[in-house]
Amino acid sequence: MQRIFYPHSVVVIGVSERPENLARNIIANLQVFGYGGQIYAVGRRKGMVRGVTIASSLNEVPDGLDLAVIVTPAATVPELVESCGRKGIHQVVVESGGFGEFSEEGRKLEQEILESIHRWDMRLVGPNCISVVNQEVGLCLPFVPLSPTTARLGPVSVVSQSGGVSVTYMDLLCAAGVGINKAVSIGNKADLNETDYLRYLLGDPGTQIICLYLESISDGRELLHLARSSIKPIIIHKANRGQASRHVAFSHTAALADDDRIVSAAFRQVGILRSEDFRESVAIAQGLCLPPVRGNNLVIISRSGGHAVVAADAAERYGFRLTPLPKEFLEQASSLLRTDVITLANPIDLGLIFDFDLYARIVEECLRILSPDAVLLINTFTLVEAERAQKLAQRVEEIVEGSGRPVAFCAYSQGYETQMTQQHTNLPIFAEIEDAIRGLAASRDWNSRKERAVETTSETSIERAPNETRRLLSGARVFMADEALSLCEQYGISIARFEDANGPDAAMEAADRLGYPVALKVLAAEHIHKSDVGGVALGLQDRAAISREAEAMLTRIGHPTRLMVQRMVSGGLEMIVGGKRDRSFGPVVMLGLGGIFVEAFDDVTFRVAPIGRTDAEEMVEEIHGKRMLHAFRGRPPLDRESVTKALTSMSTMLTENPAIDEIDINPLVVLETGAVALDARVLVTGKQTN
Amino acid sequence: MQRIFYPHSVVVIGVSERPENLARNIIANLQVFGYGGQIYAVGRRKGMVRGVTIASSLNEVPDGLDLAVIVTPAATVPELVESCGRKGIHQVVVESGGFGEFSEEGRKLEQEILESIHRWDMRLVGPNCISVVNQEVGLCLPFVPLSPTTARLGPVSVVSQSGGVSVTYMDLLCAAGVGINKAVSIGNKADLNETDYLRYLLGDPGTQIICLYLESISDGRELLHLARSSIKPIIIHKANRGQASRHVAFSHTAALADDDRIVSAAFRQVGILRSEDFRESVAIAQGLCLPPVRGNNLVIISRSGGHAVVAADAAERYGFRLTPLPKEFLEQASSLLRTDVITLANPIDLGLIFDFDLYARIVEECLRILSPDAVLLINTFTLVEAERAQKLAQRVEEIVEGSGRPVAFCAYSQGYETQMTQQHTNLPIFAEIEDAIRGLAASRDWNSRKERAVETTSETSIERAPNETRRLLSGARVFMADEALSLCEQYGISIARFEDANGPDAAMEAADRLGYPVALKVLAAEHIHKSDVGGVALGLQDRAAISREAEAMLTRIGHPTRLMVQRMVSGGLEMIVGGKRDRSFGPVVMLGLGGIFVEAFDDVTFRVAPIGRTDAEEMVEEIHGKRMLHAFRGRPPLDRESVTKALTSMSTMLTENPAIDEIDINPLVVLETGAVALDARVLVTGKQTN
Repeated sequence: MQRIFYPHSVVVIGVSERPENLARNIIANLQVFGYGGQIYAVGRRKGMVRGVTIASSLNEVPDGLDLAVIVTPAATVPELVESCGRKGIHQVVVESGGFGEFSEEGRKLEQEILESIHRWDMRLVGPNCISVVNQEVGLCLPFVPLSPTTARLGPVSVVSQSGGVSVTYMDLLCAAGVGINKAVSIGNKADLNETDYLRYLLGDPGTQIICLYLESISDGRELLHLARSSIKPIIIHKANRGQASRHVAFSHTAALADDDRIVSAAFRQVGILRSEDFRESVAIAQGLCLPPVRGNNLVIISRSGGHAVVAADAAERYGFRLTPLPKEFLEQASSLLRTDVITLANPIDLGLIFDFDLYARIVEECLRILSPDAVLLINTFTLVEAERAQKLAQRVEEIVEGSGRPVAFCAYSQGYETQMTQQHTNLPIFAEIEDAIRGLAASRDWNSRKERAVETTSETSIERAPNETRRLLSGARVFMADEALSLCEQYGISIARFEDANGPDAAMEAADRLGYPVALKVLAAEHIHKSDVGGVALGLQDRAAISREAEAMLTRIGHPTRLMVQRMVSGGLEMIVGGKRDRSFGPVVMLGLGGIFVEAFDDVTFRVAPIGRTDAEEMVEEIHGKRMLHAFRGRPPLDRESVTKALTSMSTMLTENPAIDEIDINPLVVLETGAVALDARVLVTGKQTN
Repeated sequence: MQRIFYPHSVVVIGVSERPENLARNIIANLQVFGYGGQIYAVGRRKGMVRGVTIASSLNEVPDGLDLAVIVTPAATVPELVESCGRKGIHQVVVESGGFGEFSEEGRKLEQEILESIHRWDMRLVGPNCISVVNQEVGLCLPFVPLSPTTARLGPVSVVSQSGGVSVTYMDLLCAAGVGINKAVSIGNKADLNETDYLRYLLGDPGTQIICLYLESISDGRELLHLARSSIKPIIIHKANRGQASRHVAFSHTAALADDDRIVSAAFRQVGILRSEDFRESVAIAQGLCLPPVRGNNLVIISRSGGHAVVAADAAERYGFRLTPLPKEFLEQASSLLRTDVITLANPIDLGLIFDFDLYARIVEECLRILSPDAVLLINTFTLVEAERAQKLAQRVEEIVEGSGRPVAFCAYSQGYETQMTQQHTNLPIFAEIEDAIRGLAASRDWNSRKERAVETTSETSIERAPNETRRLLSGARVFMADEALSLCEQYGISIARFEDANGPDAAMEAADRLGYPVALKVLAAEHIHKSDVGGVALGLQDRAAISREAEAMLTRIGHPTRLMVQRMVSGGLEMIVGGKRDRSFGPVVMLGLGGIFVEAFDDVTFRVAPIGRTDAEEMVEEIHGKRMLHAFRGRPPLDRESVTKALTSMSTMLTENPAIDEIDINPLVVLETGAVALDARVLVTGKQTN
């Protein structure tokens, strides 16, 4: 991988002298960005481009070059890759499109390429990608002509599933004063995927922040694993939300878990900073380029009172607290600020002060006296003040460097003066108040992230009959309630006592043993929604009621069927505890309010398994309806702890049994002491992969 | 008001030759923006600024000038305003600060100014403001030096409560290709407030879109009244959200109704487009500058596949539908688009097409064949393509003008090329995909807004005893449940039958009459939360239970108190129907889920009264928990209609009785047929103002 970003030599394949040729742009980019290694060009006809000789065959260039870049029609690529292998080139970038993303035929070509890659022990970027960029060494491989005038070397490396987006991120991050270290567009991920690049960049000294644009996630668990232990902040802009698979779901868990919610939950779980759009990614990167924000105390300084109000709103929204100004500050500030015309408070309104030098001094005094966790300076300026604004930005940059404290500088001006100002400083200039606060919040959140290890559940002491579990889980099928509940019980989740009965008489006898009142339910896999088919009778108080309801139920259902007699549980709060196997992230645990609430409020939360007690507690905390566990109208509080226990048990069940595809405990009735599963469903696919 | 924006002559007061003088910037602005009227200057010393003579007294300028602008220390302003009055100047802009916003003394000065204003029949802008701008006539009164180079005459007029924000909006709207017609910063609103300016601008031919920045709302009902009948879209950026009064609330309605939610509800009610920040206001204005979007069918055309994915996500989020491409289009497009290298679908990925002229033709063909409601063209371009991008923007502008169809043009490039491109076209260029979709959505929402008249409630046929109501509502106090319920009943809301009882014996007799089971509740104003003090006993089945509970309750409460015996209502869904008098908007109706849900989910919605049946139905629709009214587990659906009736009744009650400050019906139990109020609270302040 190192040789992909730091090649000593590059051969571009597909170059011609024609002006519209794309590959020649790569030669140009390497030259104008100052790449210092050897550059070779290969094309169908001999020739010369920008002083580089075009060889008509790969045979004419030296053996063992570091990196080949191929920009030729798809059909020609497999043979070229094979030739590269023969020539001892171990790194190949295929920028051409027309592969798996386009057609079945293209998919086959991609397969052929992969065979060469494996045969010759090569690594492949793409196909169907645009860029490998390493600003450290002037490596710039996009086939569109780029200009180094707006480029900026910085701490952020970009991994993008779209070539166009990689270029946009380079443009935006450079324009925002952040700059780029490396960038790669990963195309069809035929060989190297996002986790490969991420792993490399986590160890790359030049990269301090990693920004990914993803439309799909190849290996969610590996991504999470890398992120969990990363000391570099990872920003992910995950698009393609709408296309999450929305199949008709078997369980509530699956119905409520469109991929995107799981993505968000998984990212949050490991400290990945998820961004919603380009702008947010850039704002987060800007915030992370400043010295770390370590708390919530913020001072806002603004030339315009209105902007200060807007900033105070944004600060509140992101959980910042406006540091009160102590007496000491007010005393000192009165010499700096004309307290006869402005009211001293935080936000500090600079009002009629037109001295830009003074703004810098006020920032310094704020840092010195107030020691806030961050300062936001909002500078609205006119064209005639442009030069002074540039100097102020430079001054603030010095203050930030000198103090090691974060000062977010936000500027509003006419035309593109704000962007012009950015060209005079390495301090990132925020174009909007909202961005500045977002950036500071991202830094705070990243820096406050507890580096807690993955806890494992403590439920291992539960005695299970492994053979029984294995028998239950063999073959693709739906469990009936009795089996599903038994499985839950094996994992330490309390269930409401029940017995099977094959008819009314057996049901009455079972009820006598269980004690009244009881519920009567049909047991048949196809009756997933038992209540919809009249397959549930609740609160039966005596033998007569059981006999009557059982007869009626069997008549309604219409064919031989088993019945379940279950001890009624009264009171408590219905919740759902579920699990599903996500395509990207594997086993996922879900918690939601049950009963009618799950339909009405969609109030659910997710975690990728395995989860520990702290994760489980956080899940309960994230549910809006958590207040329903509190004491209410004289009813004592319900047993939160039993919910977290059920969640960690669910996590264990899912990780230990890869065959389980979906599972719902619905409802889990949370009582004052304990929680009891009343009904459950399990879908087993027979797959044994995780 | 006309003379404020179209003065034939302007006198600037406070001018001096000193370079740091602020008032001289106004002279400069008038000159460089090409103001054609007479310009006069008055200062303490005679002199000359930019060719304009500075008179040392107002007496030296002609009588009857149209507009005076005052930029002098606060203490000098009252006398100057009085002088203006004497000189027959009817329009005064006081830009100086140091008035009501600053100190008590300043407030007095402001009062003096107002007296002069009223004495001489003048109108006042400010004090404590920065700008009156009319780009139509080159009127430009801010005291900061502005440059006309980036200015652009456009359809948007800005009304801002902050001077700095008014300048930022001018900068941003001009940079975004929208431009400005008029702008005014309203300062302390001592005389003219936002509704005065809004009223003027609604009738101003040059103004097509109005954008307001507000930190407070002076007359909410008038604002809503103007907006409701406006044929010009109104965008409001309402800041100062955090400072909504969060007093310890008497009722649930008040506790849940922080001002900001009511602001949002009120704006939505009358079609005001609320924006969250500068960027959103600008995006909305850009969208409204395009021909109207009249539906949800969108075609996305992008040079970059990744940008297309991002756009598709945003389109889905804002409720757009990607028009499928019919056979006809595919046939025609294959001649334009190289279908051998790209997959034709919507979004249309331009892939390896580098011909910018072709982009324009594809846009035309899309409009012609597909007739979508809008097209989004995303153009990612490099520096070497900048000129072609400018031409493309101009071509798209022509297409938009020629077709009368909305095409949102979104550009991403290096440095500030996007902004540069904007300088070559009047087509607004969106800097982000999210902005483009937001702008199109705003246009769609504005254009689809049903012009429905304010319905009045149909509850007028209910027979009320006005004298009884008046008696109840006199004096500031809290109603006990029996009185509150009686009030509700007078407005046609069904209540659970009850009787008062002054002791256990009377309670038993009442229960015999009402029928068992009954509830027993203490009646005392201070026991607002009756259940917290053990003042409620439910489900009493017989005389013995009543006697026991009544004795226990009276012992617990500890002093002579009345009891209420109420018929129990079983089943149904608990909701809250409430009302409060908002400081800005007057009477407001609230609907939420009741019982434990109101605590857990905060699931509430608001409307400014009076509301009609459609409003009420929309309120029910807005509640997340509305599904709890549906059939569930064999229970039939509940009576939605009864909820809407209760809401319109509540609206009538509030509008007819200005004395009611807060009212809660909690719970209103919604049954299969009808809805019944079980408990209610009313806070009467004795104010008779609306």
